[in-house]
Amino acid sequence: MSNQESKKALVLVADGSEEMETVISVDVLRRAQIDVTVVGITLQNENYAKCSRGVKIVPDQSLSNISNFDIYDVIVIPGGLNGAKTISSNSEVQKLLASMHRAGKFVAAICAGPLAIKSANINKGGKITSHPIVKADLENEYSYQEDRVLVDNKVITSRGPGTAFLFALTIVELLLGEEKRNEVSNPMIISSIL
Amino acid sequence: MSNQESKKALVLVADGSEEMETVISVDVLRRAQIDVTVVGITLQNENYAKCSRGVKIVPDQSLSNISNFDIYDVIVIPGGLNGAKTISSNSEVQKLLASMHRAGKFVAAICAGPLAIKSANINKGGKITSHPIVKADLENEYSYQEDRVLVDNKVITSRGPGTAFLFALTIVELLLGEEKRNEVSNPMIISSIL
Repeated sequence: MSNQESKKALVLVADGSEEMETVISVDVLRRAQIDVTVVGITLQNENYAKCSRGVKIVPDQSLSNISNFDIYDVIVIPGGLNGAKTISSNSEVQKLLASMHRAGKFVAAICAGPLAIKSANINKGGKITSHPIVKADLENEYSYQEDRVLVDNKVITSRGPGTAFLFALTIVELLLGEEKRNEVSNPMIISSIL
Repeated sequence: MSNQESKKALVLVADGSEEMETVISVDVLRRAQIDVTVVGITLQNENYAKCSRGVKIVPDQSLSNISNFDIYDVIVIPGGLNGAKTISSNSEVQKLLASMHRAGKFVAAICAGPLAIKSANINKGGKITSHPIVKADLENEYSYQEDRVLVDNKVITSRGPGTAFLFALTIVELLLGEEKRNEVSNPMIISSIL
């Protein structure tokens, strides 16, 4: 597949983002040859995001350095409560999420990440899931479910680190099909039941 | 638990290490209040390890900055073939692994990481598992098994990203017991079958 034809993803990361959810998303999508850009949001140290359990991840770009958002097929919001709060309260992120959703792109969020779906006013009334810790923030404005991964109106949501492989593989399947999903999944020695 | 009583872990990372296996190990152990130090091995850019799928992780220390290795209860070697080759061929790492094994500490390796068990001459003839890509490198000198996680003579081995949660939770259980393992596992929304 040439670079022109590659699917493209943004993965946001802030201080306090859940590092496993961030890295599993980036890694699994890149195993599927999706062109992933890791974007730092409001970092205290401009060189890295200090994640929820102290892992320091160097982003590829800042939001202000990306000139054209139309090329991206999916945007991914990891959890980690503090990171998700930073991301969901950022007005540039809110505009970007709403714009991508209107354009028919996938918006994907895991754990506490779905807080950003709500703050961007996306798919209100639709089906959503999240980590139990933010259920109360979502259940009044969405049809709250407890599926490990849920897809509704191109909004993909999921529950926590233990569902992050399933979440990332679902994104791969939606963008590139079941064959690519299996091609990526098998060498990772994923359990038959995730 | 006071800091003096905390269990302590080293997690090694090199250019080419598998970022999911690295980060799942660090994060899950820290969720169990294990004091984890991420140690960069022979990094091309001294500021970060460029992992197998391009995620850049900032280590906490270099090996030369650690003065006393006796305080660590476990050392963890992630996979990623290039990272595992760098780590397993490093003579300082070989000495450290052999010394920790002799002292009765846990030595844990996942995916291609078990190459470092072999190069450190640890537990030869014992049971081992790994990612299938390095099976041929191990099966002549070990009793090769295909368990998702295997513990033999304080050597913990496992198979790939999809077994990394089980690998890390096994380390937690061996160091701190089943109750702590469950305390860490449940909020991560881990599937009942890993």
